[in-house]
Amino acid sequence: VAKLYQIGVVGFSGYSGAELVRILSRHPNAELVLLEHRSESPEDWSVNGDRLKRRPLAPEKLKNSGLDMLLLATAPEISMDLVPAAFSAGIKVVDLSGAFRLRTADNFQRWYGFEHKRPDLLAEAVYGLPEFFRSVTKVARLVSNPGCYPTAANLALRPLVMGGVLDHKAGIICDAKSGVSGAGKKASGKTHFSSVAENLSAYAILTHRHVPEVLLTSDLEEREFSFTAQLLPVHRGILETIYARLRKGVTRKDIEEIYKKSYGKEPFVRVYPEGKFPSLQSVAYTNYCDLGIQLDAKTRRVVIVAAIDNLVKGAAGQAVQNMNLMLGLPETAALL
Amino acid sequence: VAKLYQIGVVGFSGYSGAELVRILSRHPNAELVLLEHRSESPEDWSVNGDRLKRRPLAPEKLKNSGLDMLLLATAPEISMDLVPAAFSAGIKVVDLSGAFRLRTADNFQRWYGFEHKRPDLLAEAVYGLPEFFRSVTKVARLVSNPGCYPTAANLALRPLVMGGVLDHKAGIICDAKSGVSGAGKKASGKTHFSSVAENLSAYAILTHRHVPEVLLTSDLEEREFSFTAQLLPVHRGILETIYARLRKGVTRKDIEEIYKKSYGKEPFVRVYPEGKFPSLQSVAYTNYCDLGIQLDAKTRRVVIVAAIDNLVKGAAGQAVQNMNLMLGLPETAALL
Amino acid sequence: VAKLYQIGVVGFSGYSGAELVRILSRHPNAELVLLEHRSESPEDWSVNGDRLKRRPLAPEKLKNSGLDMLLLATAPEISMDLVPAAFSAGIKVVDLSGAFRLRTADNFQRWYGFEHKRPDLLAEAVYGLPEFFRSVTKVARLVSNPGCYPTAANLALRPLVMGGVLDHKAGIICDAKSGVSGAGKKASGKTHFSSVAENLSAYAILTHRHVPEVLLTSDLEEREFSFTAQLLPVHRGILETIYARLRKGVTRKDIEEIYKKSYGKEPFVRVYPEGKFPSLQSVAYTNYCDLGIQLDAKTRRVVIVAAIDNLVKGAAGQAVQNMNLMLGLPETAALL
Amino acid sequence: VAKLYQIGVVGFSGYSGAELVRILSRHPNAELVLLEHRSESPEDWSVNGDRLKRRPLAPEKLKNSGLDMLLLATAPEISMDLVPAAFSAGIKVVDLSGAFRLRTADNFQRWYGFEHKRPDLLAEAVYGLPEFFRSVTKVARLVSNPGCYPTAANLALRPLVMGGVLDHKAGIICDAKSGVSGAGKKASGKTHFSSVAENLSAYAILTHRHVPEVLLTSDLEEREFSFTAQLLPVHRGILETIYARLRKGVTRKDIEEIYKKSYGKEPFVRVYPEGKFPSLQSVAYTNYCDLGIQLDAKTRRVVIVAAIDNLVKGAAGQAVQNMNLMLGLPETAALL
Repeated sequence: VAKLYQIGVVGFSGYSGAELVRILSRHPNAELVLLEHRSESPEDWSVNGDRLKRRPLAPEKLKNSGLDMLLLATAPEISMDLVPAAFSAGIKVVDLSGAFRLRTADNFQRWYGFEHKRPDLLAEAVYGLPEFFRSVTKVARLVSNPGCYPTAANLALRPLVMGGVLDHKAGIICDAKSGVSGAGKKASGKTHFSSVAENLSAYAILTHRHVPEVLLTSDLEEREFSFTAQLLPVHRGILETIYARLRKGVTRKDIEEIYKKSYGKEPFVRVYPEGKFPSLQSVAYTNYCDLGIQLDAKTRRVVIVAAIDNLVKGAAGQAVQNMNLMLGLPETAALL
Repeated sequence: VAKLYQIGVVGFSGYSGAELVRILSRHPNAELVLLEHRSESPEDWSVNGDRLKRRPLAPEKLKNSGLDMLLLATAPEISMDLVPAAFSAGIKVVDLSGAFRLRTADNFQRWYGFEHKRPDLLAEAVYGLPEFFRSVTKVARLVSNPGCYPTAANLALRPLVMGGVLDHKAGIICDAKSGVSGAGKKASGKTHFSSVAENLSAYAILTHRHVPEVLLTSDLEEREFSFTAQLLPVHRGILETIYARLRKGVTRKDIEEIYKKSYGKEPFVRVYPEGKFPSLQSVAYTNYCDLGIQLDAKTRRVVIVAAIDNLVKGAAGQAVQNMNLMLGLPETAALL
Repeated sequence: VAKLYQIGVVGFSGYSGAELVRILSRHPNAELVLLEHRSESPEDWSVNGDRLKRRPLAPEKLKNSGLDMLLLATAPEISMDLVPAAFSAGIKVVDLSGAFRLRTADNFQRWYGFEHKRPDLLAEAVYGLPEFFRSVTKVARLVSNPGCYPTAANLALRPLVMGGVLDHKAGIICDAKSGVSGAGKKASGKTHFSSVAENLSAYAILTHRHVPEVLLTSDLEEREFSFTAQLLPVHRGILETIYARLRKGVTRKDIEEIYKKSYGKEPFVRVYPEGKFPSLQSVAYTNYCDLGIQLDAKTRRVVIVAAIDNLVKGAAGQAVQNMNLMLGLPETAALL
Repeated sequence: VAKLYQIGVVGFSGYSGAELVRILSRHPNAELVLLEHRSESPEDWSVNGDRLKRRPLAPEKLKNSGLDMLLLATAPEISMDLVPAAFSAGIKVVDLSGAFRLRTADNFQRWYGFEHKRPDLLAEAVYGLPEFFRSVTKVARLVSNPGCYPTAANLALRPLVMGGVLDHKAGIICDAKSGVSGAGKKASGKTHFSSVAENLSAYAILTHRHVPEVLLTSDLEEREFSFTAQLLPVHRGILETIYARLRKGVTRKDIEEIYKKSYGKEPFVRVYPEGKFPSLQSVAYTNYCDLGIQLDAKTRRVVIVAAIDNLVKGAAGQAVQNMNLMLGLPETAALL
């Protein structure tokens, strides 16, 4: 009989939280507990949810809750309160908010615009991109789940930067396009159907709080990296078109070998053969990050097209991948 | 009483052709004649069209047709036949195909993949981007209507290149996104609703037959310009996000002045104030090209967001603008 | 030179109001004045609007405003205040709200759920469905513009009811589907892109405040008419599939003659030939109401498919049609 | 260790076939074999599929193939050939085509428009709607998987008809709306993105080959049942709004009890409480059929809103449900 862990989900009525529920419902080792935070109304959860255990979230009673893991699909402010409460109760945490993604309180203040309540915990948090940080994730008690845009950007860029094949002086450009679920469930003029359908709009040009995650993880300097985010008329999915200049003499074969070395054994990164490129549909409802590569000799450009489902590899799927590692379960459980 | 010109439209059942009909139906000086080419079935035209004059296209009878102007929303191969026929009959032409956009038969062969039938006419064709070539358009008998992608790219780039503010060595990137109507009306797996909806796919990376129009018009070298085209789940509209590096010392004010000088009196180019960017909906069903500008001191990047309706400023609207110029009519007639 | 009327639009930043602006901008006899009501922010109106005259709405100063006509794209509560103010200033009104569509205060209270402030004006308001009430519209000072659903339903049903061909005992069913613009511009969970896209939901089953307009206009009793409204993932358009049972012996030819008699000379109602049915795209951005008819001998059913653009024939277009009649202008001005 | 069955899927590159693959990939007792029929190109199957077993379909070699079950997501003509071949090899079949849904060759000829090749097998085929025909499904060697529209219509109607609560004389109306995947993967003008998006069109009014399945299963006469099908701008999902008149004295409680008796223990039919109605999103990617009910005393109408995912409960999910029954596996395996 499979060992069962008690997994608490906070923020289950948001898009990422609902996706956690969808994925964990098929997890052979997870007993899911929905923890009601704030005033989630009965409307917030569908008929399906009626079969699921629900319990009010009482941070002060976490100690005897029997929970093995907390998954926080919450705002950063709330995660800052819940992480210490979980630690007091000896419960491990995967935090899907941005609260613990950066390394210093100053940097957090700069990009998020408010003060960090618990800078003492920043150093301990592991950045949960398993393809690079698997070993430390396994022993962490706090994993900070990466942002959706940086997940795709770092999986595309870090191997090339580490491989030393990019001409940094020419700059690196990430032109990102995201589905509406990336903007969250809150109703606003910007997410109104009639504003989004039959439209495409740029909403963050050269400034987005996800930028520093790319700089930190792919070891880039700020003056080297330009990022634009655009809102697509789709519900889920991110496609990033990334432009960089190669150092002289770098060939397609070099790039392919670098990626093969990085991802040849990775279960969730697929590198496409020459002439093929992923689309949003290639990865919808999966935990894959797909990469397509184009080289141009004349301009020495490499263009990488990276696609993920922002709610899966960009949020809930990657969180479950991290959870699996932290609990010693097969990394792909519930994700293939 | 307004003077009436007889305007013949060939290819009226395609997307660009239908848009020509829509626009010309409100033109105070145009009497529209639909010229039936090939086997356009009654199904090809809606109930609306019943009120419009239709006539079989007989190239050999153009002489006494009474037509003043032909608008060709046809394939390049067909335009190559019809333009000489129109000339023999003394009729002016705006050609919306790509047949006469490039300057040499060799370049045409390279980008379109087949031989040009009438290289002798290439030199005569005026490239119909009125913001730059208005004076020659007025006296032309053949105007080659620009491609949809180059219209936006050239309106964004040519003033900056001419103004000498770009650092060409760092390269210029145009990340373009287009609605499905840009791919034409032909049914295929790629335009099937279920392939396009809830999707975004890159379909031309670093190679597209529209590229040379940008090189020629904005005076760029091939090794300086990278272009990617992506298919959006919308019917109409193009948004291009263009990245370039500025020469040292260039300020936002410099850029604004360059654009003001170029477009301050243009009826169809709108430059947005700082912090504002156009979206597809900003220009849908209009002949505007809207430009938003972002500068970043650290990377010396300028990012220009350019939006047009691919069927209007990118095709039929610009064709009518050219027609207006060629016939001595107010340039904005039927377009505001 | 065309005579110019001063036309004031209140509520120009909503969907119907913006459509009024779009249509009136091309009206040869209308000088458009946007009247700012409440706190319409600069954000509420696009770059286009900058060329248009704007003025704060001051009900007490309407007298010397020079306005010839007010078009109210407002909530019923606001229309109830503005209509008397307009009357005091001698200005005619087309009201697009539901304030003056019903005949008695009691009926209004029942369907709208609050008390009518000016029941004294109900009797005077002409129900502005020009196909039936053209002659009284021409002399009215207050025209109540019909609701979007009833416009299509009444154009489909009233001729058949008047022609005596329906078996009322079997009941009449109207299964209506509407685009999101019908729900207005206000952001809510129900109009969030992710709630609407890839979805269809029924939101008013057997009860909708538009029902009494059909009962009154097509002379039906409540027990004879069932109405359901469903929300489509499109911005604009209404399609109604209407089911009724014919009296014995009624043929397709009878139905066609009834419609021909009603609509043979109408500029905005198109009856399709056998086997053809309208879709939303048939009427998008037009003032047409299109009707397709199917008969089934076995069930004695007649099915009528009625399509309109909810923002045009269902709102702003019909309002301009009424305005044209009230001002003695050609009925189709700005609408073809 | 779970017992493994070899399950062959023919037609795996179509929408229903791909959905079979998606569902069976998580089935604990299924070893999936993709059987290549005709010329399915490598393009027809995504990168995912590379991990799956593929084999050319050789009907004459089925005997020693080791297959336990064939799932046919094929055209009726092909199923007529493959079913006898499977029988010869002792292999059970679930056929997703319409080939074996009707009871007589004459009726098949009438609705499908061509002659049935194997009328001898019609009597043996079990109509695979498990909620009503579970016991015979368990012992069948050929199960004919129901059409998508009839699945929802019969689940809504059969209990009411059997319960004797409907006034048949007033007729029953089913107004059905379907996503584009119901029309199959073949590219055509009708499935072109630009024809479907921002549109709704009626494509089968009072005549659809799915009608006889409702008549046969819910015991209705042709003169009692009217059916209309409309094409929605979504990929997957069916919503049917069904209108019937109740016999005098029938109450909501009566209806609820009838449904409770029919579906109280069913794993895949959910009846909603008063005032709640399902939407396409309620059932997307699930095997549920959801029912919402509205009664109106004045008109004695009952309106039932029935929603399914056409590719799951309307095709592949129901096929797996039938397969589970035929192989003695838990009925819900891979479906919850």
